Amino acid sequence: MVKKAESIRFDYNNMMSVYVGAKEGLTDKDINAVKAKAAEAHAYFKANRGTGMMGWTELPYNQTEIVKDILFTAKKIRRKCDAFVVLGIGGSALGPMAVFQALCHLRHNELPKSKRKAPKFYVEDNVDPERMASLLDILNLEKTVFNVITKSGSTSETMSQYLIIMDLLKKAYGEDASEHIIATTDEQKGNLIKIAKAENLKTFFVPSGVGGRFSELSPVGLLPAAVLGIDIKELLKGAAFLDRACRKGDIRSNMALAAAATQYIAMNKGKNISVMMPYADSLRLMADWYCQLWAESLGKAVNKKGETVYAGQTPVKALGVTDQHSQVQLYTEGPFDKVVTFIAVDKYRAEIEISDGCEEYPSVSFLCGHTLNELIACEMEATEYALTKNERLNRRITLPEVNAHTVGQLLMFFMLETAYAGAMLHIDTYNQPGVEEGKNVTYALLGRAGYEEKAAELNARPEKNPKYIIS
Amino acid sequence: MVKKAESIRFDYNNMMSVYVGAKEGLTDKDINAVKAKAAEAHAYFKANRGTGMMGWTELPYNQTEIVKDILFTAKKIRRKCDAFVVLGIGGSALGPMAVFQALCHLRHNELPKSKRKAPKFYVEDNVDPERMASLLDILNLEKTVFNVITKSGSTSETMSQYLIIMDLLKKAYGEDASEHIIATTDEQKGNLIKIAKAENLKTFFVPSGVGGRFSELSPVGLLPAAVLGIDIKELLKGAAFLDRACRKGDIRSNMALAAAATQYIAMNKGKNISVMMPYADSLRLMADWYCQLWAESLGKAVNKKGETVYAGQTPVKALGVTDQHSQVQLYTEGPFDKVVTFIAVDKYRAEIEISDGCEEYPSVSFLCGHTLNELIACEMEATEYALTKNERLNRRITLPEVNAHTVGQLLMFFMLETAYAGAMLHIDTYNQPGVEEGKNVTYALLGRAGYEEKAAELNARPEKNPKYIIS
Repeated sequence: MVKKAESIRFDYNNMMSVYVGAKEGLTDKDINAVKAKAAEAHAYFKANRGTGMMGWTELPYNQTEIVKDILFTAKKIRRKCDAFVVLGIGGSALGPMAVFQALCHLRHNELPKSKRKAPKFYVEDNVDPERMASLLDILNLEKTVFNVITKSGSTSETMSQYLIIMDLLKKAYGEDASEHIIATTDEQKGNLIKIAKAENLKTFFVPSGVGGRFSELSPVGLLPAAVLGIDIKELLKGAAFLDRACRKGDIRSNMALAAAATQYIAMNKGKNISVMMPYADSLRLMADWYCQLWAESLGKAVNKKGETVYAGQTPVKALGVTDQHSQVQLYTEGPFDKVVTFIAVDKYRAEIEISDGCEEYPSVSFLCGHTLNELIACEMEATEYALTKNERLNRRITLPEVNAHTVGQLLMFFMLETAYAGAMLHIDTYNQPGVEEGKNVTYALLGRAGYEEKAAELNARPEKNPKYIIS
Repeated sequence: MVKKAESIRFDYNNMMSVYVGAKEGLTDKDINAVKAKAAEAHAYFKANRGTGMMGWTELPYNQTEIVKDILFTAKKIRRKCDAFVVLGIGGSALGPMAVFQALCHLRHNELPKSKRKAPKFYVEDNVDPERMASLLDILNLEKTVFNVITKSGSTSETMSQYLIIMDLLKKAYGEDASEHIIATTDEQKGNLIKIAKAENLKTFFVPSGVGGRFSELSPVGLLPAAVLGIDIKELLKGAAFLDRACRKGDIRSNMALAAAATQYIAMNKGKNISVMMPYADSLRLMADWYCQLWAESLGKAVNKKGETVYAGQTPVKALGVTDQHSQVQLYTEGPFDKVVTFIAVDKYRAEIEISDGCEEYPSVSFLCGHTLNELIACEMEATEYALTKNERLNRRITLPEVNAHTVGQLLMFFMLETAYAGAMLHIDTYNQPGVEEGKNVTYALLGRAGYEEKAAELNARPEKNPKYIIS
C-alpha cells in the first residue's frame, strides 16, 4: 500500500486570476464553464479505455507474464553484455531515454564497471552517418546487445540501422549474430516479426492497441529499463496508482483532468506554447518524452467530425535552473503566449553543501552554509514568483522524490492529461496522418518502387528562385 | 582566401508565397515594405558596432595576442590533465557546448585516451545536487582543470560550484589548488577577478562590451575549444568571413539581414515560434545556443522608447530526422504559428552504407545500397516539401561541411540576424531586465543581507488555495 505522502502533486494556483492577475488568469467561472466538457471527456475515456488505440491504459495491469519474461531476459543480458543499444526512433526511443535518465546514475556510461552494475546504455534515434560511425568507434560488438524496436517493422530509420548492424554481426559471428539482437515489434503485422522469426531472434511484442508515444510501459520501455536494473514492477505500480487516483470525472479530485481542463482553457485563450521545465537533470529527458506525446497527439488539422481545426499547442522543453539563464527573460517579458509547467522534486537523491570561502565578498559568501538543494529549490520558487508577478500562467507538478514509483506516476499523469485534452478537443489523439507525406516523399526520392507518381509530383515543383538564396 | 564554395548558404524560397502559398507566404511587396526598416537597422548596427554592448562584433579581428595566450595555456592543459570542466551557466555554457558538439567526436568522452587526443570535457550548467554528485563520482581531481566562467563574478550558480570545487581542491592539494582552476571574467569589475588575484589563478577576460550570449568568440568559448584541439583561428576566420559578407544593408546580398527581415515580417504575421532544426547530431547543441541568443535578446517588455511591446519569438530546438517522429505532425497540421529553420549539411564527415539484406521484404530492402547520408538528406528534403505543401513557412541554412570555419560563420550569422532583428524591433537587444526579479527573490529566500524588503513582499503573498492542489 502506497502512502498518500508518496503521491505526486499537481498545483495550479498560479493559473488562477487570484494569483496571476485578472488579465491572464483563469477564474472559477472559466473552470465551471468547461466542467461538463471535462466530465464528458472523462466519460469517453472511461468507456473506451483498453479498447482500440487505448490499450495503453491497461499496461499497468495486464503484463504479469510479460514482466517475468522481461526480467528473465534482462538478467541474461546483464550477465553477458557490457553495452545495450536501442535502435528505435520517436516513441521507441524517448521513453527508454527518459526513464534511463530519471532512474540511473547521471553519468552511468562513464562509471567504472564495478560501480555501474548494468551495461552501458545507448539509444540511437537518428540516421546521421557521423553518429553511427561514432557509436561503432566505441562499441565492443562482442559484448553488445541491440534492441531493435519498431512496431510497424518498416520504420526506415530503424530498419536501416538494423541492416547495418546485422551485417556487421553476421560478418563477425556468423549464426551467433542472432544472440546479439532482440526485436520488439507487433506480434502479427509488419516485416520485423517475419525477419525475427527467420533469423531466430528473441522477440517482445508491442500490443496492437498501443501506439509509439504511449508505449513506454509496454516491453518497448520495460526491457531497456529492466536491463538497466530499474524496478519495472514499481514503475508499473506507480502508473497504476496514478491511474486509480484519476478514476473520477471531477476536476477537483482528478489531477490529470484538472491539468487537461486548465490547459484547454489556456489554449482557447491563445496560449499556443506549453513549456515543460523540470528542476532536475534527472527529469530533463522526461520533458522530451512529454514533447512528443503532447505535440503528436494534439497537433491535428481536423477533428473527429472532419472539421478543420488546426489544433495543438507547441511543447517546449526547458531545464531549471539552467534555462533561467536562457529562456526566462522571454517567458517573463515576451508575449503572453505560454503556460509554464514546473516539475519540482521535494527530496533529491544527494545533498551537497556549499563550502565556506570568499568571506570578504558578501555577494558570494551569503551562499556558504546553504546546500545546492536549497539553492535549486529557492530558484524554482523565485522563478515561479517572478512569472506569476508578471502575469504569466504557470503550474507545478511535484515529485516527493525521483524513484520508479513516482516516475511511473508521472508517465501516467501526462498520458492521461493528453488523452483527456484530446477528448476535449474532439480530435483523434492516437493517429499521426501529418507524417505520411514526408515518408512518401522520402520513398520517392530514394526511388522505391510504387512511388513513381510522387516522384513525378516532386519533379513538377517550381524551381527555386536564386534571388532568395544568398551565399 | 576562402573559396565562395565554402560559404554557408541561406535559402528562404519556402518563406515566399510562390512556394508556400498565398495564404501564409511572404510576397516581394511584403519584403519591399520592410526594406527601408532593414536598411535602417543595418545602418544602426554599422554605426554602433564595436561600441557599447556591441563589442562582440570585433572579436574576430582584435584577439591576436589573446589567441596566442589561449593556445599556449591550452597546450599546457592538454599535457597535464585528463578532464576539463567548465563551471558556467547560460552564455558561459551554451557556446562551449555547441562548439564541442559540432567539432569533436560525438562520443568524445567515451573514446579511449589514445584516440581522444584531448581531455574529457564537461560543462556543468546547473546546480542540481544529483548532478554535482555524479560528476564528482567520475572525476579524477588530480587530473582535472576547472574553468570557472562568469563575467559578473557573482552568478550564484557558478560561484556555488566554485566554492565547492575550490574547497575540495584545497583539501587535496593545498596551495597547488590554484593550478586546477582558470577564471574567465571581467578584467575590472566583480568579485571573481579579485578572488582570482588573491588565489593566484590564471585568468582570461570577457571584454566589457561582450554580453554572455554574444561571448562564444571571446575567451569564454575560445579557451575550452582550444583545449579540445579545435582550430580557434579558423573559427574566428569563419566568423570574420561571414561578417564581411554582411557588410551591405541590402536584403538581396546580406543573408543575415534577409533572415532577420523575413523573420520580422513573419512575427508581424503572428508567427510567435521559431523552430531551429539541424539535420546533424553535431549541430544539435548549436540549436540550444541559438535558443538563448534569440529568446533573451528579443524577448522584451518595452522598446527603446519605453513603450510596452511584449516582443519576442519563442525559439524551439528540434533535431532532424529524430523529431520528424515527435514534432513534425504538429508542425504540419497544427496552428500556423511557426517558422521552421532547417540546417542542412552538404557533406558529412563519415559515410555509412546501408547493408544488403531482407531481400524478401521490399518495404525494407529498397533502402539497401543507399547510404545513411542519402537517407538523412532525402528525409530533410521530404520534410521541407511536406511543410511547404501544407503552407508552413520554412527556410534553410546549409553548411558545405561542419568544420571550424563554417561553425564560425554560423555563429556570426545568428548573432548578426539577432542584432538586426533587435534593431528592427527597436528594442534593447543586449539587456535582460526580466531575470532580475527572480535573482532578487532567490537572494531573499536564502536570507541574503539587504533583501529584507523583498522577503517581506514574499511573506505578503496570498496563501495558496488547497482546492487548486491535487494529490
